[in-house]
Amino acid sequence: MFPRNAWYVACTPDEIEGKPLGRTICGELVALYRAEGGIAAAVEDFCPHRGAPLSLGRVVDGKLVCGYHGLEMGCDGKAVAMPGQRVRGFPCIRSYPVVERGGFVWIWPGDPALADPARLPHMEWADNPDWAFGGGRYYIRCDYRLMIDNLMDLTHEKYVHTDSIGQKELDEATPTTRVEGDTVITRRYMENILPPPFWQAALRGNRLADDVPCDRWQICRFTPPGQVLIDVGVAHAGQGGFDANPAVKAGGTVVDFITPETETTMWYFWGMARNFQPQDAALTARIREAQGKVFSEDLEMLESQQRNLLRWPERKLLSLNTDMGGIQARRMLERLVEQERGSTAQIGS
Amino acid sequence: MFPRNAWYVACTPDEIEGKPLGRTICGELVALYRAEGGIAAAVEDFCPHRGAPLSLGRVVDGKLVCGYHGLEMGCDGKAVAMPGQRVRGFPCIRSYPVVERGGFVWIWPGDPALADPARLPHMEWADNPDWAFGGGRYYIRCDYRLMIDNLMDLTHEKYVHTDSIGQKELDEATPTTRVEGDTVITRRYMENILPPPFWQAALRGNRLADDVPCDRWQICRFTPPGQVLIDVGVAHAGQGGFDANPAVKAGGTVVDFITPETETTMWYFWGMARNFQPQDAALTARIREAQGKVFSEDLEMLESQQRNLLRWPERKLLSLNTDMGGIQARRMLERLVEQERGSTAQIGS
Amino acid sequence: MFPRNAWYVACTPDEIEGKPLGRTICGELVALYRAEGGIAAAVEDFCPHRGAPLSLGRVVDGKLVCGYHGLEMGCDGKAVAMPGQRVRGFPCIRSYPVVERGGFVWIWPGDPALADPARLPHMEWADNPDWAFGGGRYYIRCDYRLMIDNLMDLTHEKYVHTDSIGQKELDEATPTTRVEGDTVITRRYMENILPPPFWQAALRGNRLADDVPCDRWQICRFTPPGQVLIDVGVAHAGQGGFDANPAVKAGGTVVDFITPETETTMWYFWGMARNFQPQDAALTARIREAQGKVFSEDLEMLESQQRNLLRWPERKLLSLNTDMGGIQARRMLERLVEQERGSTAQIGS
Repeated sequence: MFPRNAWYVACTPDEIEGKPLGRTICGELVALYRAEGGIAAAVEDFCPHRGAPLSLGRVVDGKLVCGYHGLEMGCDGKAVAMPGQRVRGFPCIRSYPVVERGGFVWIWPGDPALADPARLPHMEWADNPDWAFGGGRYYIRCDYRLMIDNLMDLTHEKYVHTDSIGQKELDEATPTTRVEGDTVITRRYMENILPPPFWQAALRGNRLADDVPCDRWQICRFTPPGQVLIDVGVAHAGQGGFDANPAVKAGGTVVDFITPETETTMWYFWGMARNFQPQDAALTARIREAQGKVFSEDLEMLESQQRNLLRWPERKLLSLNTDMGGIQARRMLERLVEQERGSTAQIGS
Repeated sequence: MFPRNAWYVACTPDEIEGKPLGRTICGELVALYRAEGGIAAAVEDFCPHRGAPLSLGRVVDGKLVCGYHGLEMGCDGKAVAMPGQRVRGFPCIRSYPVVERGGFVWIWPGDPALADPARLPHMEWADNPDWAFGGGRYYIRCDYRLMIDNLMDLTHEKYVHTDSIGQKELDEATPTTRVEGDTVITRRYMENILPPPFWQAALRGNRLADDVPCDRWQICRFTPPGQVLIDVGVAHAGQGGFDANPAVKAGGTVVDFITPETETTMWYFWGMARNFQPQDAALTARIREAQGKVFSEDLEMLESQQRNLLRWPERKLLSLNTDMGGIQARRMLERLVEQERGSTAQIGS
Repeated sequence: MFPRNAWYVACTPDEIEGKPLGRTICGELVALYRAEGGIAAAVEDFCPHRGAPLSLGRVVDGKLVCGYHGLEMGCDGKAVAMPGQRVRGFPCIRSYPVVERGGFVWIWPGDPALADPARLPHMEWADNPDWAFGGGRYYIRCDYRLMIDNLMDLTHEKYVHTDSIGQKELDEATPTTRVEGDTVITRRYMENILPPPFWQAALRGNRLADDVPCDRWQICRFTPPGQVLIDVGVAHAGQGGFDANPAVKAGGTVVDFITPETETTMWYFWGMARNFQPQDAALTARIREAQGKVFSEDLEMLESQQRNLLRWPERKLLSLNTDMGGIQARRMLERLVEQERGSTAQIGS
């Protein structure tokens, strides 16, 4: 259950440096690589000669060369050459629209004619020197929607991330959820609270007192198919919170790009973009490590939740007010999948 | 193929100290924990909120608190509370009758109305200071009935446990099998034999000569669904064997509680209860270690036997006189399962 | 898709020294062992008593003794004895024709009446002191025909074995394929080329200059069901190549015996027989190690090719001139399987 006519993060640029990468995205086995001019490209991971995965091959002069018998594949899925052979009649394989932007390689698994780069998310942090970014990647054996649920209901921080970003006030501050255009936004504000360890460290990282009352915010913004950007941070109490002067706060945007591998497995590209002390590389590294630990705590929960749901497929889950973010996100995804089915049906008729 | 209206060992008390335990028993995924007052309890391992396993949570004031979003579950399967929520209308989950007795936590996977603690086995060793007990737990990938077969035909000791309890005289002493009420009893006596290494060590543990002819006994008692108690021991020859004066023998009861996980996997709770030198903790530890090694030798055999049976499901096995214990036990189990089906059908009609 | 009325390598003699071996061959679970007089034998790996694998047992006086309860199995699949039992009425299990020859234990999974040792391959190297042999065994998760394809099109050496036997001239020398009786032969000759590292080492092993132009040959001979013998070597250029005087060349026969385990897994018995410096055991060891490394490079390719073919079962592969060896081999195998089906149908009618 995922839209196909959408941009998904396929990998990070470092994963295709010097060699191709084989990865399954939305059920498609693709070989990602740098074609001529270093342009990121993706084709089916299947050599039309004998079915070997092209991702086990090499990239030579921008051509993906099969590592079995040397067929050279073009980025359009047409064989370019093969030693001692005429390739003109060789069957084509699928190629996929790919765009490299914002520190990610994006792929469009659906109809290539609809792949409009203008639909890629705006990533302010990527080009603006006032921002710094650090992140990582996890492989998780769960439906990608369970991760969206997770990120759209941060109540779980109190229980899953007890020692870092959890605090009891999370339960007391009821979130509100709104749909604005194609975005679901869930907001939670906690005022006059003591910051938990992760945010204490961030305040220190911005040379601010970490032991004073603060206002804390969490503004989760889901956009289909798998993007959750969360404005998070703390400001010394009473200074305006999210809108406070940068000199009295520490915050940023949790960046979550979620890519289904199959119906029950996913790739999770996570990170933190911050607009304080952007030149402090050591701080970036510390935040990245802390955030990596936090997100690793979700893995066991999400994977065992998935196993439970497969074991009891008939059980309906509850839809509480805290679940509204995830529920609205699922509705949006269902509408998109429904639309794709409709348009495919039309084409077919 | 297992009766559901029966007590099974779910775990040992140490497994639920301080945190819940998730375990599958007779196909049921349960969360075991200590509820109010330290009473052992079990509910389905499924939070009605979002399907997370409750066993990943914590126990707070006798409530099982879901580790994802804090739902508090009562031992009756009804949600007690959840921060910021009214739980009255939440769907219930199953709860299971549980009794802690004799150093084991027992669960009743079937109809709770029938769960009578009087049907728990008598465990003399558990409360009587004349006895000592040491044991352990193994996970085995086989139908639990293969383990019952194993324990009801100790001929295999000669072949599987060559270096410890095996001896050639096992083949020569034909066992006899009788059904007495709801118990199957297989007896084997070997007279005037030299004790094998395990029993030599036991004789020494009871300060007796270990190099003299002995009489050896094995009285296997199966009671459904998964209990095999085996009176075993050696006495100096001609002193009365099983009935000899305690001063000239070393023996006890092999305790086997067998719990199906699925149709082809099981939990094995094993141990040795002995009524000689009960205060000698070092002896208990030595016997436990030796017995653990003996039972580990059965694992590969049972698991590969199971694989063979799955590979050749149509083949009928032989029913020799030595197999009578296991065969009578299987008949008893079949009758119980048949009865349960009948009564369910009646209820359904 | 494999003929059953054929000899396959089951194991090497060392694998059945001192204890039985359980192995699956053409879907048959067999226990291989040395019966009376040390004769290699094979029966189904299933004890008719309780289904235990006989391969977990022991061999005593040429009888395979079940490791569970001591049933003694004869090499004809009939129980010989069992302590305390009359075995006359015990059901038989299958036995398989087995021949030990040429350093391999061969098994015939099909109709025993057709098992003619005269159909075993001639293995010159095995008995002739002018030859030396070294080899090994790999387990590969692929259809055995993918391995045949691999060995009948050595173009892949340039891409898969870059650092050892690969060289650019492979692409330039088009192979020719012929069917001669029940053998498919693919020949490739490269003249006046510089030998790649593996062959440089072989030349040095035969005390010949390794930095001079050479003629190189590859003569791949497939015979059903799973035998590929490849005459390979280099001679100093212009001396007659394959037919040159032994004093100016280094060569031998790559020995490949391929045994299906299931439709998508296989055992690969590989080696190199050479007829130069046969007494040089250190050279044998060096060649064996180098060849083992070369063949290990094929594993990832073959297993991922297999995964791709299972993922896209409907896709047809290309049949280029370089693929002719494998394609002719497959045709031969298909005819054999077809014949077996035909004769089985006749028997059945």
